[in-house]
Amino acid sequence: MKIVAFAGALRKDSVSKKLVQETVRLLAEEHDLDADYVDLKEYPFPVYDSDIEQSIGIPESIDRLGKLVANASILVIASPEYNGGISSVLKTLVDWLSRFKPDPLAGKHLLLLSASPSGSGGVQGLWHTRVPFEALGVHVFPQMVAIPRATDVFDQNDRLVESKAADKLRRVLQSFVEHAVRHRPINGDENHRAK
Amino acid sequence: MKIVAFAGALRKDSVSKKLVQETVRLLAEEHDLDADYVDLKEYPFPVYDSDIEQSIGIPESIDRLGKLVANASILVIASPEYNGGISSVLKTLVDWLSRFKPDPLAGKHLLLLSASPSGSGGVQGLWHTRVPFEALGVHVFPQMVAIPRATDVFDQNDRLVESKAADKLRRVLQSFVEHAVRHRPINGDENHRAK
Amino acid sequence: MKIVAFAGALRKDSVSKKLVQETVRLLAEEHDLDADYVDLKEYPFPVYDSDIEQSIGIPESIDRLGKLVANASILVIASPEYNGGISSVLKTLVDWLSRFKPDPLAGKHLLLLSASPSGSGGVQGLWHTRVPFEALGVHVFPQMVAIPRATDVFDQNDRLVESKAADKLRRVLQSFVEHAVRHRPINGDENHRAK
Amino acid sequence: MKIVAFAGALRKDSVSKKLVQETVRLLAEEHDLDADYVDLKEYPFPVYDSDIEQSIGIPESIDRLGKLVANASILVIASPEYNGGISSVLKTLVDWLSRFKPDPLAGKHLLLLSASPSGSGGVQGLWHTRVPFEALGVHVFPQMVAIPRATDVFDQNDRLVESKAADKLRRVLQSFVEHAVRHRPINGDENHRAK
Repeated sequence: MKIVAFAGALRKDSVSKKLVQETVRLLAEEHDLDADYVDLKEYPFPVYDSDIEQSIGIPESIDRLGKLVANASILVIASPEYNGGISSVLKTLVDWLSRFKPDPLAGKHLLLLSASPSGSGGVQGLWHTRVPFEALGVHVFPQMVAIPRATDVFDQNDRLVESKAADKLRRVLQSFVEHAVRHRPINGDENHRAK
Repeated sequence: MKIVAFAGALRKDSVSKKLVQETVRLLAEEHDLDADYVDLKEYPFPVYDSDIEQSIGIPESIDRLGKLVANASILVIASPEYNGGISSVLKTLVDWLSRFKPDPLAGKHLLLLSASPSGSGGVQGLWHTRVPFEALGVHVFPQMVAIPRATDVFDQNDRLVESKAADKLRRVLQSFVEHAVRHRPINGDENHRAK
Repeated sequence: MKIVAFAGALRKDSVSKKLVQETVRLLAEEHDLDADYVDLKEYPFPVYDSDIEQSIGIPESIDRLGKLVANASILVIASPEYNGGISSVLKTLVDWLSRFKPDPLAGKHLLLLSASPSGSGGVQGLWHTRVPFEALGVHVFPQMVAIPRATDVFDQNDRLVESKAADKLRRVLQSFVEHAVRHRPINGDENHRAK
Repeated sequence: MKIVAFAGALRKDSVSKKLVQETVRLLAEEHDLDADYVDLKEYPFPVYDSDIEQSIGIPESIDRLGKLVANASILVIASPEYNGGISSVLKTLVDWLSRFKPDPLAGKHLLLLSASPSGSGGVQGLWHTRVPFEALGVHVFPQMVAIPRATDVFDQNDRLVESKAADKLRRVLQSFVEHAVRHRPINGDENHRAK
């Protein structure tokens, strides 16, 4: 049961990166599950342009990310709310991934997280973030975790120490893992569309 | 009353580009209004990354686009639906523009258009497209035009000849122009926040 | 594996009622699955008002519907798009159901369908319809079926005879049944929160 | 310039009712503008059902509300977030109003407000609330006010005393009034479609 985890932001000290890395640690510590953390900054891709695809093909970084996603059955993504909606970084990635045949996203289980300095924690952005994934056949877990006032919730080792946020993340992670393990793909089913 | 018009897609033969250019022609022919058509391909910008902003500043292409937008009072954008949501190209542009101070978008009037081979014409994408603009203070015109089966609606000179679509576009354009002219900015108001 | 099916509209000759009843027939004919078809008209409920709840309790019709839902593991709902969004009938029902303790909806699998005379088939309404269900913990199946030009697709026996629509419904139903059967609730799990 | 103000909730001690009534007071005190406050509880209407319309016509309460709305040029609505989306009370009203000919809502200016005990103040509900109004031709003001932790922000006279929330409301109200006054309808234009 392969898990791929990444943030929908590029910034080096992005709070989304801290949150998804903390989640990877919790998966290991509390669920004995290994997740591959991917930093999108190491897979640079251009703004979506199908002329690029036409002339030189899908960018190499996207090809590598597409294979990682195709081989996983579970995705964990922490992504910021930008201007009330989905992160343009994540939407660009999804638009590129949707050009793969077969669709590497269909049938995957996805947990969405966010953290933000605001009082809403970026939850509205997460609701917009669900849409393209669901349009591509992803089972986005109903529960999501949006951590408000996120400048104060991590300690100097980037561990999530604010207790309300940490409890919420643990609780949702527990439900998600139970769900995704019980529903894990069987050989040959829609979750095994690796290229 | 300056009008800037562009498509939320980069592809050379994008149907969104045809639609917005047809709209520019109709504004000239039927409303005696000049609109500046901008091809985003001539303003290449990277995926949004605030580390870029931090280290080398806002990209030069974005700076030029931001000034164009800031100096206009009206925007006309035709934009595709990508994976059920906003075009990642347009969202990337909006996320970059939102980093300008003052916000070049606040108080502008925006007409949203789409065209697609599908039966829905991309209307759902337009509803997601409204959100970041409204979050940034744009008056997005309630009526929008989504042209379905758009592979058959333009002639070889890229004029919109399918009568139902052309009628709809003309009717909404008429309402939008009346509204935006009546509500045109007065000196010193929120529409004149050019940098 | 109990299935409850209903339309998010009250009108006697609603095309949503035809669509959900056709789906119930297909579940029986092609998947050997019995679904309980519920006509909301036989469960009249008022506009949501928590003063009613406070003074005389949750309406009796809602109590009966809540028990039906709580005892099912699968829901099939066909619902119209009203003014670009969710049907107010269905939203009223969901708002009432959300007052049950424990939440009768959490953990259920839901397939969403729509049919409309328009070219888009009401798909945008379905996207808004997902939201309150997902907020309440429902696994809304990513694929949905929105049937356009729906005045012409049923025969005089209300069977869905337009082949493109029928094929789409069959295909999505097949995927949904496979998914929901494989992921069917185990005794004592979150799908068995019957009051 | 007639203003109609109401809450999208029925509950007697709804915080949305407090917020919209406070806004009516601020309009009088600081802008010398009279707004008609309407309590929807005094206009009881049933769940939307077009069979009712067919057999006995549009409910009398809806007819009265439709005329109030048609005669106004400005609407102020405070509405709760119910289950992540629009209040079913407000959606029911909008669905009924959309049956009027001509559309009483088209061309109106609308300010949307919310208040909630949560940390997000119900802002996500407001984004869903925009949609049916915009679909019906309403100019929904881009800025909205969502007041978090709203159990503590009103004093015993129901005045909004929490300073951050009060400042935000004042500031947005100022912009809205300037906008709506400047854009007020001229005789015979689309804002005067009274039945």
